[in-house]
Amino acid sequence: MAAMASLYLKTSTQLPHSFPKLPKTFDPPLNLPRRRLPAPRTRISASLIDPDGGKLVQLFVKESDKEWKLQQASHLPKIKLSKIDLQWVHVLSEGWASPLKGFMRESEFLQTLHFNSLRLENGSVVNMSVPVVLAIDDAQKSRVGSFTSVALVDEKDDMVAILNDIEIYKHNKEERIARTWGTTAPGLPYVEEAITHAGNWLIGGDLEVINPVKYDDGLDRFRLSPAQLRDEFDRRNADAVFAFQLRNPVHNGHALLMTDTRRRLLRMGYKNPILLLHPLGGYTKADDVPLSWRMKQHEKVLEDGVLDPETTVVSIFPSPMHYAGPTEVQWHAKARINAGANFYIVGRDPAGMSHPLEKRDLYDADHGKKVLSMAPGLERLNILPFKVAAYDKTQSKMAFFDPSRAQDFLFISGTKMRTLAKNRESPPDGFMCPSGWKVLVEYYDSLSPSENGRLPEPIPA
Amino acid sequence: MAAMASLYLKTSTQLPHSFPKLPKTFDPPLNLPRRRLPAPRTRISASLIDPDGGKLVQLFVKESDKEWKLQQASHLPKIKLSKIDLQWVHVLSEGWASPLKGFMRESEFLQTLHFNSLRLENGSVVNMSVPVVLAIDDAQKSRVGSFTSVALVDEKDDMVAILNDIEIYKHNKEERIARTWGTTAPGLPYVEEAITHAGNWLIGGDLEVINPVKYDDGLDRFRLSPAQLRDEFDRRNADAVFAFQLRNPVHNGHALLMTDTRRRLLRMGYKNPILLLHPLGGYTKADDVPLSWRMKQHEKVLEDGVLDPETTVVSIFPSPMHYAGPTEVQWHAKARINAGANFYIVGRDPAGMSHPLEKRDLYDADHGKKVLSMAPGLERLNILPFKVAAYDKTQSKMAFFDPSRAQDFLFISGTKMRTLAKNRESPPDGFMCPSGWKVLVEYYDSLSPSENGRLPEPIPA
Repeated sequence: MAAMASLYLKTSTQLPHSFPKLPKTFDPPLNLPRRRLPAPRTRISASLIDPDGGKLVQLFVKESDKEWKLQQASHLPKIKLSKIDLQWVHVLSEGWASPLKGFMRESEFLQTLHFNSLRLENGSVVNMSVPVVLAIDDAQKSRVGSFTSVALVDEKDDMVAILNDIEIYKHNKEERIARTWGTTAPGLPYVEEAITHAGNWLIGGDLEVINPVKYDDGLDRFRLSPAQLRDEFDRRNADAVFAFQLRNPVHNGHALLMTDTRRRLLRMGYKNPILLLHPLGGYTKADDVPLSWRMKQHEKVLEDGVLDPETTVVSIFPSPMHYAGPTEVQWHAKARINAGANFYIVGRDPAGMSHPLEKRDLYDADHGKKVLSMAPGLERLNILPFKVAAYDKTQSKMAFFDPSRAQDFLFISGTKMRTLAKNRESPPDGFMCPSGWKVLVEYYDSLSPSENGRLPEPIPA
Repeated sequence: MAAMASLYLKTSTQLPHSFPKLPKTFDPPLNLPRRRLPAPRTRISASLIDPDGGKLVQLFVKESDKEWKLQQASHLPKIKLSKIDLQWVHVLSEGWASPLKGFMRESEFLQTLHFNSLRLENGSVVNMSVPVVLAIDDAQKSRVGSFTSVALVDEKDDMVAILNDIEIYKHNKEERIARTWGTTAPGLPYVEEAITHAGNWLIGGDLEVINPVKYDDGLDRFRLSPAQLRDEFDRRNADAVFAFQLRNPVHNGHALLMTDTRRRLLRMGYKNPILLLHPLGGYTKADDVPLSWRMKQHEKVLEDGVLDPETTVVSIFPSPMHYAGPTEVQWHAKARINAGANFYIVGRDPAGMSHPLEKRDLYDADHGKKVLSMAPGLERLNILPFKVAAYDKTQSKMAFFDPSRAQDFLFISGTKMRTLAKNRESPPDGFMCPSGWKVLVEYYDSLSPSENGRLPEPIPA
């Protein structure tokens, strides 16, 4: 990962050299000085977009208060967090879900389920499409009893946070699933991982994080908070930030799209558009390529010069993945507003997957971008729909699809890409830089035969 | 029904006498002169509330255009409407769903499913929580071919309307059901009646109604359009209109609530609050009391003086019933804004029902009023939550429940009420006026034994 760190360094001439060399235990700064500008009236703004609610939420306990907060927490009923719960604590603590100040209480949960948005006290509306909730079971509920705060601990019982002014309400799983995914079919990955066996109650409240969430996987330094990203964009004098959410290896079609987006933004009059290349780092389903391998692959792509490090910031988005299509893409976009992005690139079938039971995609491939363009609270964000890129056989490279010579193009789906890599076959020249492809092949090689065999995906002809 | 007509007449001293004696084929006026006042800035207004979108939509073809519209329609592909489709044509044509101008196109459908609201071109938001859509099957779709308009005919092939600038898009039933009902459990009445066997496409467009929908059931004169209701409220010099949606017989607990609401409004400073007693007249499930019997029962309640005819308007709301709880109650409220109501009484578990598979209510009994109070586009409406009324044994009448002497109260649920009537038993004195109760007993007597036996509802102890 040294190469990526140095690339990162190379791109950050105005950064103190210490920045990319942050120790793994670095605590996100609490009160970064931030320029506060009025909300832009037009869709084009010359400064970073304001976070939702006007102020970036950060939920960390001050260093000087840590001791007595730990003391206080030790007297509270404890709730043990799952890995995914912990990822949500991470998300909440850094303000990705601003203006949320903790796990949702019932009024926020209901607004999310019914309206994909929250009305604030001043009457304004922010987008919030996926429930950020913490489930507890009957036994935990009775242990909480009449306490108004609880302590949240990780799987090793280490203290993480306090949840204050709690509210406990029913966890109607069926309704939550139906309204979030638009189906209740068994086999939705997040549902099976985080909902089906979860408790029948939800506990909401205001979060005070005592120990910021770290993963100690060698990647923590890439997990920049929204405040850190905003700082970085400011230091680079970004006048536009365009975010690219991904949970797959980057191929040259993606790169073409990102390069083309920058070109379009320059043509629109922006002087210094910066790309936030923002792989999702939380829970993903079993047959997705794991984060560590994806980061290795992204590193090779950057090394290879496919993307320009001068105008690219690579960072990890800590959210878990819902695979909830048009509902989830709103969350992906909204969180990036909070990190300073005012342009969001949306692809075909974002956050989509196959229907768990039927032979079809769960969501209409166009609904994601349509819903995103109409979503309440995202009016300030510029939505940039994907142009379709495909492999142009006449040029032996990825190019924007030209329907007038459709026969010249080859579509290589994510499934096809993974199948090729699994079978140690090579994609056509120019599909992905060879060093990036090698990482993919290595990943599938690293799986035991049974694991590899567990990925039963039909190969399209 | 003569008695109710005369009651209606009695209440309408400023009405021309012809109004309540409208011939059954009376066409709703197209261009009623309406006072247009700026949207109220506070929640209390001294004039009728503006319809959603600022202007009441009415979709009737002018009498003088009828001939050539019929001519035009005869050249178009025909789509046959089901009874429920026709009810929606009725709803749309009179502007209950203002500013909707016809069956939803995809962008409206998606906004309804995801946000329960529509963003208008001027940026304002109106509530719209249930999809108002028209399904067609593959054969119908191919018959439509490249036509841009279609003719809508009723079950007898009589011409009803033209749908213009049509858009045909996929009818993902599973997603529609999941997002509207929060469950996909088999056994949802509206789903089984109107969705399961419907076509796999939806056709949206602008509606031009050539022949207004009539039912010829002796009740058409009670089906006042929003324009007619607004006219009536204006004639009565209403300075507040409070709507009471119902699909059940009226008992004295309801009456107490409505009387009490008027008292509260007078205390708030209104001089002439008018009650819109607004039974739902469209599709209801098999074990609900049919509209004609409910209207007979309401007539007796009014005759009996339980409600004051001077300050009450009884009319039929033409919408079909979804039984979609918190999602549907928004529709029930929004439609009444369009009819001029600025206060809406919401009860426990509005539009709710039992879960079709599990032994519980489908919706949390409090979610309806909570969701309603937070719903986008309903900010102008004053939500009046039900006070709980129960039978006070010490007074032998319905009274507001007093938890400090809970043992004095008897709760008589709708289920219990129906079971008593089915068994020809009497409720406690003071629960419902005797003449109203008699109607209920007559209704259940009128069912064949097998029909009566088909209503298997457990009697709570």
